[in-house]
Amino acid sequence: MVMAMIGLDWGSSSLRAMRLGAGGEVLELRQSAAGASTLHGRAEEFAAALDALIPDWHEGSAPILACGMVGSQHGWREVPYADGPADAGALMRLSLAVDWRGRPVRLLPGLRCSGAAGAPDLMRGEETQVLGALQLEPTLAAQSCLVLPGTHSKWAQVQDGCVAGFATQMTGELFAVLRQHSVLGRLMPAEADPSPEAFEQGVAAARDHGEAGLPNQLFGVRSLGLAARIVPEGLADYLSGLLIGHELRAGLAWREARGLNAAPLRLIGEPALCERYAHALALFGEPGSQALSNTAPAGLWRLANQGGL
Amino acid sequence: MVMAMIGLDWGSSSLRAMRLGAGGEVLELRQSAAGASTLHGRAEEFAAALDALIPDWHEGSAPILACGMVGSQHGWREVPYADGPADAGALMRLSLAVDWRGRPVRLLPGLRCSGAAGAPDLMRGEETQVLGALQLEPTLAAQSCLVLPGTHSKWAQVQDGCVAGFATQMTGELFAVLRQHSVLGRLMPAEADPSPEAFEQGVAAARDHGEAGLPNQLFGVRSLGLAARIVPEGLADYLSGLLIGHELRAGLAWREARGLNAAPLRLIGEPALCERYAHALALFGEPGSQALSNTAPAGLWRLANQGGL
Repeated sequence: MVMAMIGLDWGSSSLRAMRLGAGGEVLELRQSAAGASTLHGRAEEFAAALDALIPDWHEGSAPILACGMVGSQHGWREVPYADGPADAGALMRLSLAVDWRGRPVRLLPGLRCSGAAGAPDLMRGEETQVLGALQLEPTLAAQSCLVLPGTHSKWAQVQDGCVAGFATQMTGELFAVLRQHSVLGRLMPAEADPSPEAFEQGVAAARDHGEAGLPNQLFGVRSLGLAARIVPEGLADYLSGLLIGHELRAGLAWREARGLNAAPLRLIGEPALCERYAHALALFGEPGSQALSNTAPAGLWRLANQGGL
Repeated sequence: MVMAMIGLDWGSSSLRAMRLGAGGEVLELRQSAAGASTLHGRAEEFAAALDALIPDWHEGSAPILACGMVGSQHGWREVPYADGPADAGALMRLSLAVDWRGRPVRLLPGLRCSGAAGAPDLMRGEETQVLGALQLEPTLAAQSCLVLPGTHSKWAQVQDGCVAGFATQMTGELFAVLRQHSVLGRLMPAEADPSPEAFEQGVAAARDHGEAGLPNQLFGVRSLGLAARIVPEGLADYLSGLLIGHELRAGLAWREARGLNAAPLRLIGEPALCERYAHALALFGEPGSQALSNTAPAGLWRLANQGGL
């Protein structure tokens, strides 16, 4: 069955709605700031967010499928996590419907796997981006390592069309809180031109001396600034490089432990951020990493079509 | 020369003034909230802080010696860092005097050494606490590993009476910013009874799975909370254990790299915090770590007496 559909990529801080054609092509895309975290967990507010963004899409019968925090504890309705490995069918079987003025909206579950020290690891929304990458580049489905940089970066293992496992790295959030709320931010000007040199210096410090520990190397952001070894305008990029470098140290070790060194690696996300990670990967001896952006529409389409919506 | 003196332990957030007898004993101690960071780098405000706290100590001729952030860039007067290794004499030679209504106050320099990735490492005030430990327990002077837990923990190597090298770990500050400003704090109640079990669980996670990387394991604070594997009341202690565990991983590797495994290790600081670190060290196979508290007076006295004030 190949169908036209409405996809909702509904994260914490934004809602993106898309009409997809029978071939998965994006016919129309609309975006609003009505992220799940702004809607107080009230069903009525979620329905109203759709009324506001896509009132003219309410008529008709195309299926509606939503991924992301809309299915979390404080979302429209909580959809319990699926346990990985999971493919499109497994995820769809656990999706749950809510009602938008008489039309069903299917909310996808998040995905849970076993992480370090037996702690569970979690994603909600990224599983759809991963499946979208398989849709856009089918050779990735057999085996691949997909890296989704961001506030909570995800390193995902794909095996036989399933998300077989993943590891989260809080890189983006660490950068934000350290810059805004720690002593490290005090030496940084509010705005500065990018400094690729300082970024490279941070990545190299993590690569070559990361065994000193991140909490030790973070203090170097301050000491290098106080010693005028890095200009104030470069300190944020140094910090960014240091954090991304530590993510790559751990992520590449994770990849090796999962036997994925020979599998293709792809970055998924905003092109500028992926470019930053590709730059850092090159400094780790992995040049030429390719990136995919905006894979959520293809993921929603794959889920709807392979998962039998 | 053995002298009576006035010592000032003048950090960012507090000022502690003490009259010391000829044997180094603390005759009187007073404390105020006039930390260096509250005084806007204005000499007049520093002098006024002494006027307010110890007006009756102004008369007389006992030397006055101050350590800590009072000698920083935004202190009473900037005293450039001494380069380690440094002993009491080397530090005193670089001290600089300021004037308190006609009486000289000697400000000690901070200490700088070479850290990971060639980044300088810095301390200002802790060198005095380290020297105080040598004063209180002279056998530590030949060779020892001294650990000063805190906002910016310091691991110091003592060799032949000198601070020979050190490494900073931003453990305490990471805990504070992550608890107050990151997604990890959202699941934590404002107040909770201590949970030694959760603390131990965090230390063990760092000890046994730290190679996953701190930014990965930090996300576990959230996922373990969401999965109800740790109760909300335990999450702050789990985070604390995780961060201290990562400090110990890096610090014990640093100790080994500096050839200090056979040297005595001492914790220096607040007894409750030292107890927490001793508990974590025991989980790393190092039971029975001893602690010293309030070593700054002895350090100031050693500096004044060995350094020829």
